Amino acid sequence: VIRVGVNGYGVIGRRVASAVRLQEDMELVGVAKKTPDYKARLAAQRGIRVYAADGESVERFSRVGLEVAGLLEDLIRSVDIVVDATPEEVGVKNKPLYVKASKKAVFQGGEAPDVADASFVAQCNFLEAAGKQSLRVVSCNTTALCRILHSLDQAYGVRRARVVLARRAADPEETKKGPIDSVVLDPVEIPSHHAEDVRTVLPNINITTMALKVPTTHMHLHSLIISLKSHASASSVRDTLEQTPRIVMVSAADGFRSTSHLVDFAREMGRPRNDLYENIVWQDSIRAEDGEVCFFMAVHQEAIVVPENIDAIRALSGRFTAGESMLRTNRSLGILK
Amino acid sequence: VIRVGVNGYGVIGRRVASAVRLQEDMELVGVAKKTPDYKARLAAQRGIRVYAADGESVERFSRVGLEVAGLLEDLIRSVDIVVDATPEEVGVKNKPLYVKASKKAVFQGGEAPDVADASFVAQCNFLEAAGKQSLRVVSCNTTALCRILHSLDQAYGVRRARVVLARRAADPEETKKGPIDSVVLDPVEIPSHHAEDVRTVLPNINITTMALKVPTTHMHLHSLIISLKSHASASSVRDTLEQTPRIVMVSAADGFRSTSHLVDFAREMGRPRNDLYENIVWQDSIRAEDGEVCFFMAVHQEAIVVPENIDAIRALSGRFTAGESMLRTNRSLGILK
Repeated sequence: VIRVGVNGYGVIGRRVASAVRLQEDMELVGVAKKTPDYKARLAAQRGIRVYAADGESVERFSRVGLEVAGLLEDLIRSVDIVVDATPEEVGVKNKPLYVKASKKAVFQGGEAPDVADASFVAQCNFLEAAGKQSLRVVSCNTTALCRILHSLDQAYGVRRARVVLARRAADPEETKKGPIDSVVLDPVEIPSHHAEDVRTVLPNINITTMALKVPTTHMHLHSLIISLKSHASASSVRDTLEQTPRIVMVSAADGFRSTSHLVDFAREMGRPRNDLYENIVWQDSIRAEDGEVCFFMAVHQEAIVVPENIDAIRALSGRFTAGESMLRTNRSLGILK
Repeated sequence: VIRVGVNGYGVIGRRVASAVRLQEDMELVGVAKKTPDYKARLAAQRGIRVYAADGESVERFSRVGLEVAGLLEDLIRSVDIVVDATPEEVGVKNKPLYVKASKKAVFQGGEAPDVADASFVAQCNFLEAAGKQSLRVVSCNTTALCRILHSLDQAYGVRRARVVLARRAADPEETKKGPIDSVVLDPVEIPSHHAEDVRTVLPNINITTMALKVPTTHMHLHSLIISLKSHASASSVRDTLEQTPRIVMVSAADGFRSTSHLVDFAREMGRPRNDLYENIVWQDSIRAEDGEVCFFMAVHQEAIVVPENIDAIRALSGRFTAGESMLRTNRSLGILK
């Protein structure tokens, strides 16, 4: 059994902690958190051991009558692997703690690539990642793009990919963030950082990305235009993506015409927190013309990296193949394929 | 002086009526309207003669004490040219009235292309349109795309254009329309109708379009990726677009990072109704790579076709060149270039 600690209990940490508890070959030792809020309370109620992220936090927890199991350092000492799910660029500051304790660590995509030995997407580079000291699970958009581009590159060769990302402006609980009634160019410059980030996993892909921020809280929407090296019809591309793990097809005929329909679908399936771990591709949007294939894809910003974190833990342990790890992860999380 | 009547006083009709009044060579005889609402009242206060669009409307107007100048038929009889600004697919039903009265007519882009003798964008095909019986001013997105693609095609040749359109979900007063907190694929299928519509003005352009609807009310945001036949650097493309009429450059350095900033800019300039008649291109987004140029562009959905309607009136009159007409229109509306 791999003993896992999760440092940070926000959007990603909560989900990874829940997912770790569903793995037969893992034990969630505990989570470290700074603030004694409703999330901490719910975690404690579910029997998760909550550690204080620092000395100040200990006081804050005791003031509201929430008992902590110890300090972050105690958590780190008791685990084999730490998943760092702290906010962007905080992970790199935590790294010395993990190194000092000689613990392996999984970082998130908000960190710079050099925070870890390798950037990671399970179905793209599990083998190269196996047994390393640290891995960086790339961000939601990059994870989704790597799954798609790796699959199409294997099947047809990708000559050039162009992606326009309409990104959700805020997560559901981020009430302070905008925009409202505006489309923001984020950034104005082209390409956005996503193109470079894809190449941390797939170094040979020729890709440009253009990123917008739109006033929604649920899911990013990608418009992809990909030139392929060998001929591919729309139906052949559909078949290829159908056979790719963690990519799921939906259609307008089945009632899917927006990101809202997808979130409602996740609720209706009874997914925890309405999460969708899969890339969602509209099969009736796929069009092949002039050696280019175009389609629409949706990415659940909070959930898509959860299976990658679980697989990253197994990759670090060095005891699994990609296929074995992904099968266990998929089954435990109810991933559709 | 060209005597003009405007049938329909909604989003477009109001703006065209105001613009006609600013032309030295035109007279606004009146507007026809169905409902005696605040817009009708403001029109009357401004000295615009309001005609009832049908018999029922006459009663409705008299019930609220608003006097009408006559019926739609009376308006048509007293003008040289009618601008039909009624809702989508209503224009085609009105056409027999104009034909019967032997009056020339301008229709809007919501109508099918065969409603008129030609589809029209002033800087693309004024000459071919001159002297015809009827013209169709293409929709806001199509107008913007035609201005851009015509310019780049003249300068470098367009090999293939790909455009992702993030469309505003509703106009500011459309309180019944959504989406809220959702991105809608509109339609799911690729291409959207915009590609075909561009070819009603520029028949030789190879273009595909992908359309989303996002929860905003101000402006569409286009992400363009265009392969050119001859080599063009980013700065050369910038120069070409700088020199193209009705295309205006903005930059992030100057504070423009979203559609909201543009609407605020229009307010600050004192533009009537916050209107922007120009294509707005972010000059710092322009990137040239692998024979492709990418950039972001914003389109004011309510305003961009207003100068085209004015130029369409002059084209129908047969008495102007494109340059003369556009100069008069630009000066009267304060178009930046």
